[in-house]
Amino acid sequence: MGRMFSSLTLPVAVPARTGSLTLAAARPEDLEVLMALLADDAVSAARGDVAAEGDKERYAAALEAIQADPSNVLLLARDESGVVVATMQLTVIPGMARRGSTRLMVEAVRVSSARRSAGIGEAMMRWVMGPAAVATGASLVQLTSDAARVDAHRFYERLGFVGSHVGFKYAVPGGAA
Amino acid sequence: MGRMFSSLTLPVAVPARTGSLTLAAARPEDLEVLMALLADDAVSAARGDVAAEGDKERYAAALEAIQADPSNVLLLARDESGVVVATMQLTVIPGMARRGSTRLMVEAVRVSSARRSAGIGEAMMRWVMGPAAVATGASLVQLTSDAARVDAHRFYERLGFVGSHVGFKYAVPGGAA
Repeated sequence: MGRMFSSLTLPVAVPARTGSLTLAAARPEDLEVLMALLADDAVSAARGDVAAEGDKERYAAALEAIQADPSNVLLLARDESGVVVATMQLTVIPGMARRGSTRLMVEAVRVSSARRSAGIGEAMMRWVMGPAAVATGASLVQLTSDAARVDAHRFYERLGFVGSHVGFKYAVPGGAA
Repeated sequence: MGRMFSSLTLPVAVPARTGSLTLAAARPEDLEVLMALLADDAVSAARGDVAAEGDKERYAAALEAIQADPSNVLLLARDESGVVVATMQLTVIPGMARRGSTRLMVEAVRVSSARRSAGIGEAMMRWVMGPAAVATGASLVQLTSDAARVDAHRFYERLGFVGSHVGFKYAVPGGAA
């Protein structure tokens, strides 16, 4: 945990519909479960996240880079049996716009396919929108969601998010992904 | 300049249609020109960025936070006479998704109203999509643009961006903005 997230107490227990979840920062030994969670999603898999053995070094390097970056934290959510059920990445971004607002960005929210529609994503997002935003001094929480994820859009709107922006991506030629 | 951006050589000259621009990291003494650029935009002004004297301390604190954050750089673009004509913020974000892709996020692109439609934004974005992405190891450049900015969307699409995502925002109750 780095500077930006030093104010976040982790691990933290968050209430969910089907029991308490524990959120903790991912560790190097969590690499394979993280790869599996990414691959367990049709949109991600279509982009190349298929948990290939040959990609392990790339993912390990990415995990190391996230852990070394004080503005980022990669979280794992475990159920009461200690089973990993979800992941998400948070980034704290200071900014001048909106009268000097700090933003808390959410990326790569993934819930295990076996555990979807059980309130896990909601519990995690409510923690982000409440205690995590307060602890990091963020006045804005933001995320982008693939236009294909229509159910996810309804979910975020129900939580209080406004889909006010268009998210643009540009794949750098010769880039890794 | 911090760790993430240490590979970016700044100031840098970038070619634009109306002459060369110089991009440099903003300094504390650039505070007022930054506030003026933010206010010189209808969408920003509607969100409260009106360069109010009473907001100066908030903006100064935000500028300091950006400068202290090794993952972020706030840039100013000057024309050949040394006049500030634009600003933008870049954030390098390591990530697991897309096979461990590093993302280069662009926020708060603002061109002085007197200098719009002169290729300044395009020159800055081409530098981001090319040399800056390569130097920071980013395989994806991303940004969100308010749904109201229809002209900006056409501009980003023309440069090669794909508006594949919906950008969701949540204003934290009691948050600063």
